Amino acid sequence: MNFRVIFESKGLQVVTLLSPYLRRLQLLPPPLSLTIKEEEKVEMAGPSGKKEKVDKAGPSGGGGGKKKKDVKKETGLGLSVKKDENFGEWYSEVCKHEMIEYYDISGCYILRPWSMAIWEIMQTFFDAEIKKMKVKNCYFPLFVSPGVLEKEKDHIEGFAPEVAWVTKSGKSDLEVPIAIRPTSETVMYPYYSKWIRGHRDLPLKLNQWCNVVRWEFSNPTPFIRSREFLWQEGHTAFATKEEADKEVLEILELYRRIYEEYLAVPVVKGMKSENEKFAGGLYTTSVEAFIPNTGRGVQGATSHCLGQNFAKMFEINFENEKGETEMVWQNSWAYSTRTIGVMIMTHGDDKGLILPPKVASVQVVVIPVPYKDANTQGIFDACTATVAALSEAGIRAEEDLRDNYSPGWKYSNWEMKGVPLRIEIGPRDLENDQVRTVRRDNGVKEDIPRGSLVEHVKELLEKIQANMYEVAKQKREACVEEIKTWDEFIVALNKKKLILAPWCDEEEVERDVKARTKGETGAAKTLCSPFEQPELPEGTLCFASGKPAKKWTYWGRSY
Amino acid sequence: MNFRVIFESKGLQVVTLLSPYLRRLQLLPPPLSLTIKEEEKVEMAGPSGKKEKVDKAGPSGGGGGKKKKDVKKETGLGLSVKKDENFGEWYSEVCKHEMIEYYDISGCYILRPWSMAIWEIMQTFFDAEIKKMKVKNCYFPLFVSPGVLEKEKDHIEGFAPEVAWVTKSGKSDLEVPIAIRPTSETVMYPYYSKWIRGHRDLPLKLNQWCNVVRWEFSNPTPFIRSREFLWQEGHTAFATKEEADKEVLEILELYRRIYEEYLAVPVVKGMKSENEKFAGGLYTTSVEAFIPNTGRGVQGATSHCLGQNFAKMFEINFENEKGETEMVWQNSWAYSTRTIGVMIMTHGDDKGLILPPKVASVQVVVIPVPYKDANTQGIFDACTATVAALSEAGIRAEEDLRDNYSPGWKYSNWEMKGVPLRIEIGPRDLENDQVRTVRRDNGVKEDIPRGSLVEHVKELLEKIQANMYEVAKQKREACVEEIKTWDEFIVALNKKKLILAPWCDEEEVERDVKARTKGETGAAKTLCSPFEQPELPEGTLCFASGKPAKKWTYWGRSY
Repeated sequence: MNFRVIFESKGLQVVTLLSPYLRRLQLLPPPLSLTIKEEEKVEMAGPSGKKEKVDKAGPSGGGGGKKKKDVKKETGLGLSVKKDENFGEWYSEVCKHEMIEYYDISGCYILRPWSMAIWEIMQTFFDAEIKKMKVKNCYFPLFVSPGVLEKEKDHIEGFAPEVAWVTKSGKSDLEVPIAIRPTSETVMYPYYSKWIRGHRDLPLKLNQWCNVVRWEFSNPTPFIRSREFLWQEGHTAFATKEEADKEVLEILELYRRIYEEYLAVPVVKGMKSENEKFAGGLYTTSVEAFIPNTGRGVQGATSHCLGQNFAKMFEINFENEKGETEMVWQNSWAYSTRTIGVMIMTHGDDKGLILPPKVASVQVVVIPVPYKDANTQGIFDACTATVAALSEAGIRAEEDLRDNYSPGWKYSNWEMKGVPLRIEIGPRDLENDQVRTVRRDNGVKEDIPRGSLVEHVKELLEKIQANMYEVAKQKREACVEEIKTWDEFIVALNKKKLILAPWCDEEEVERDVKARTKGETGAAKTLCSPFEQPELPEGTLCFASGKPAKKWTYWGRSY
Repeated sequence: MNFRVIFESKGLQVVTLLSPYLRRLQLLPPPLSLTIKEEEKVEMAGPSGKKEKVDKAGPSGGGGGKKKKDVKKETGLGLSVKKDENFGEWYSEVCKHEMIEYYDISGCYILRPWSMAIWEIMQTFFDAEIKKMKVKNCYFPLFVSPGVLEKEKDHIEGFAPEVAWVTKSGKSDLEVPIAIRPTSETVMYPYYSKWIRGHRDLPLKLNQWCNVVRWEFSNPTPFIRSREFLWQEGHTAFATKEEADKEVLEILELYRRIYEEYLAVPVVKGMKSENEKFAGGLYTTSVEAFIPNTGRGVQGATSHCLGQNFAKMFEINFENEKGETEMVWQNSWAYSTRTIGVMIMTHGDDKGLILPPKVASVQVVVIPVPYKDANTQGIFDACTATVAALSEAGIRAEEDLRDNYSPGWKYSNWEMKGVPLRIEIGPRDLENDQVRTVRRDNGVKEDIPRGSLVEHVKELLEKIQANMYEVAKQKREACVEEIKTWDEFIVALNKKKLILAPWCDEEEVERDVKARTKGETGAAKTLCSPFEQPELPEGTLCFASGKPAKKWTYWGRSY
């Protein structure tokens, strides 16, 4: 039977109907509900080597719909819940589909190649940009001695509860316990003090790509909140506050570009409140994303000005042109693998992941659609030629010529993995010297002549990237609600809105709002005060305190 | 006075004579003996923020030789010992010159940008090569649960004494202590067991770039032996032993290329003995380097075939085409930041580091040599233009226009940092539209017309790279000694030779040799049995046991 006909006429529906049958033939992965149980076993008891015997080498079937009722509980292919029905479960299932593997130590996750490739693409971009800014890479140790870690009081208070301690090596106890870096300010700055003598040693701009550990107990979430994660941390020192302030914003702009230009995730640039700023720093700027489904903000990345606080603690002084001793001005800035989680939450749908072309390790997947007595070899050759032409043009393309899966299974499988563009080649395409393209973001199909393949595909990938951003932006805009009073605030909060409110900018008041909104879904707090401030009419009052408002600030629950 | 004249006539000698004077004017760094004391303080008490006030903004002097006797104790610029006099001290001083900073936790070191750049260049090469082999990058957690870590008995016996354990987070004890990975076999393979089902899931080829921790107590050495280090670890699984065997050698060849083509360090490819192979593996191949000054071998990098041992422990099975269950064949392979230490030991001289052009982050440094009433601005412009032309051509070039250092100081400073090629531009060069090149590897000077600058420099850099390898190879060859008897063995060992001996290949005998050669300089052991075996005449006997010899094997003390 002709798959093209089936899958075009009924689309995924059909796969859904057939899935128990296909699955028995091992043409579909086991329903994820199963996988999850397995995961949980792993989480508790350590990964079991055991597994039911499977024969993936079964016949390449796919026909004959039956057992409708068996299927009811499933949505799309493999996902057991819809994004809108149970977001948490949906997110965990999507992550588990080749992005993440749950690990036998809770709060730790395995980054599989499908997600690691995304991290590497962002890394290539960011690393090149900071090198243009004369930032140099280095590597400081994973371990911190207690004395140094605790040198900056506010700072350590901020991190102490989450610090993991090494106390033994082999069978013997260490003389002093040694901490694992939760971040590296205290690791690095004693040496900044040593390396910086005169004004000519400034600015000092270092960055490192590394892992950090924060032993959190609030429920772990892949990418978003894990006990070990990968990040870059930049640490810079300047002679003047002006230079530091300038760099804070240059870096923040790079973070915006990572989210908006690479991950197609809209973010707000703004200033963190006193309560929410970096422990020990002067002020913190951030890019904030928002997840409509949960009505929660996500701190996307932060660029801190540390002022002279650490310089004072660690005696980072320099001699200026006049021969006087001054303290340096410092910044630190970081973004982490959390970025990937925000991207998944923003774009994924009931079919699974949707990857923006710019970060997808496979931008185009080419799938042959053979038809019984048609020229199968010709179709396969056309697929290979297509991949060759695209790769030649610098497009990341792959073919899926596996003979043990049906085209329909492959469509759904690559949709689940989020590949931005699918190319199908069947007998009719061969005759007409064309290929069929199918967009992952909106499902739009198009027949394009093989003559103009490369230009068309390049154009399509750009359109997909742009559209994903636009759609995400519209969804977020639809959630923004401007409020003036406490009652409006509570209503909007319960409606999962991204709340923009006039605020008196007093720490006391934010703490009070947190206290008054505490609940099992978490308290509301400030996300950021956007740099782009709407007009604040004379005499506007703070929604929470009734005092004169100083600025517009975004409020909401957050990750 | 004209620096060119001074520095050409007497070379560094002059700087040496002048160094105390220059130093008082802050035209030279403090003698490293000072720095070392500081370091030691750091190692014991944590880095001190305190520092003597220095004014680097002093006049740009350099003339007038005096106080000969003050200088006697010093060699070259800043190094307090010669490579041949006290190799250990020499190595530590060279490392401290911007490659490494000693850290307040013993056995941990800071990789400064000057060494990190070398690591990144090797990483770019190797990462691209393994991606061609279809190896994919991933990231597994830093932490291992005890149960998994101890699953493979020989393996854990090999690592147990060096494992660091996390037992606390914040103030609370963990339910079970958690290990920090010394290597990731046991971290990864439970998931290989889960991911691999049928023959179509093979080969599985993963790699990760990460940090590992081995809490060694034998004396730490920067790069060569540290408690935390950076490496790449590849872990692959195949359906057949043939495929595994083939990959072991493909990877080993990449390691050879890193050493010989990038670091200009000659290595021997060979097989490790049973005593020296990877704990839990089937066999271990390695590239072995040799340090003539200490007469010690260094294991440069290893490519292991693990056979089916881990597959058995972790139940990594697959179903073959015939539907039968089989165990996979596995490899693991790694190289680390140790590579950088081997390079420093091999090429450095009494002036400091010598970097091979291929890994030098600065391949060419351009230094202006102004002369009192000469056209200083013209000279500076010529330097900038030269750097621009070289950078344009993809050569990593930098200018040193600092006005607070004399040309002589700059020469010595960049020689200490090991920059392969120096370009000087003075008044005469400006007149003759030429530049003066000075090679770091052999000191050869050349005047080249600015017209053919780029071609000349490219050619010179290639010559330097080739020459550094050749010189290192000759030095090593001169140390190789072929012996037949125990007496010859002992004599050669005491002469710090790289000993090639006929061996019966019995574990007992190697253990016996170790026992009989034990001493404060360490026992002798096998380094490897080279793949290129000299002819072994019928009836040749083992130098140690007198039994029939099976192969030629390299023996010696090692790092």
